[in-house]
Amino acid sequence: MDWLDDVKWDAQGLVPVIAQEQGTGDVLMLAWMNREALRQTAALGRAVYFSRSRGKLWFKGEDSGHAQTVHEIRLDCDRDVLLLRVTQQGHQPGIACHTGRHSCFFSRLGDGAWQAVDAVLKDPRAIYG
Amino acid sequence: MDWLDDVKWDAQGLVPVIAQEQGTGDVLMLAWMNREALRQTAALGRAVYFSRSRGKLWFKGEDSGHAQTVHEIRLDCDRDVLLLRVTQQGHQPGIACHTGRHSCFFSRLGDGAWQAVDAVLKDPRAIYG
Repeated sequence: MDWLDDVKWDAQGLVPVIAQEQGTGDVLMLAWMNREALRQTAALGRAVYFSRSRGKLWFKGEDSGHAQTVHEIRLDCDRDVLLLRVTQQGHQPGIACHTGRHSCFFSRLGDGAWQAVDAVLKDPRAIYG
Repeated sequence: MDWLDDVKWDAQGLVPVIAQEQGTGDVLMLAWMNREALRQTAALGRAVYFSRSRGKLWFKGEDSGHAQTVHEIRLDCDRDVLLLRVTQQGHQPGIACHTGRHSCFFSRLGDGAWQAVDAVLKDPRAIYG
């Protein structure tokens, strides 16, 4: 498919992908996709990433139940970064982070240190237990 | 400085950085930082990236005038991605993209093709001329 060839995959065949929450505009996480992950994301309308640590496709929510419905897929001007507009499923408000928080970006720089400033919405042991 | 050591720099000494607009929540761009870029960003309160193509620090706005004032710096749960909350300077509405558009993510997937769906706000020749 031509549109998959338009993406500039890196040396590992990956691109970074930003997941932004529909409605709030909150940036939830950054993950990675390979060609097959992007193809499946577009086909299924749900986020499928490539797990670099596990070396395989990661159907977001397969363990946690916190899947992401994908409303829109965008590509940047250099064609090497993707932006998804998503609805985070399985909890209200949405939990994108494996720590049980809304967003993975819960640490803020202040007074020369990273400080966790966002609440844990659900105990990770209850998510993955 | 300890907080710089907390970041998990990749094999090239870099991390991806998402710039999100304060107020609108729009995702403007993704760029990269090395340790020195992050140190200067925090010290100056303006976005300083590392240009992978030029192999040196990139003081965002040095050519275009479209600098980014940084309100907040966040780190993700894996400590290998940064999120900036910024105000895009030099034009109203802000122009983050070298194509003269608000955001670098102006191409949307639809009908099996990437389609440019956001307007050019200023001719790039007028920005960089």
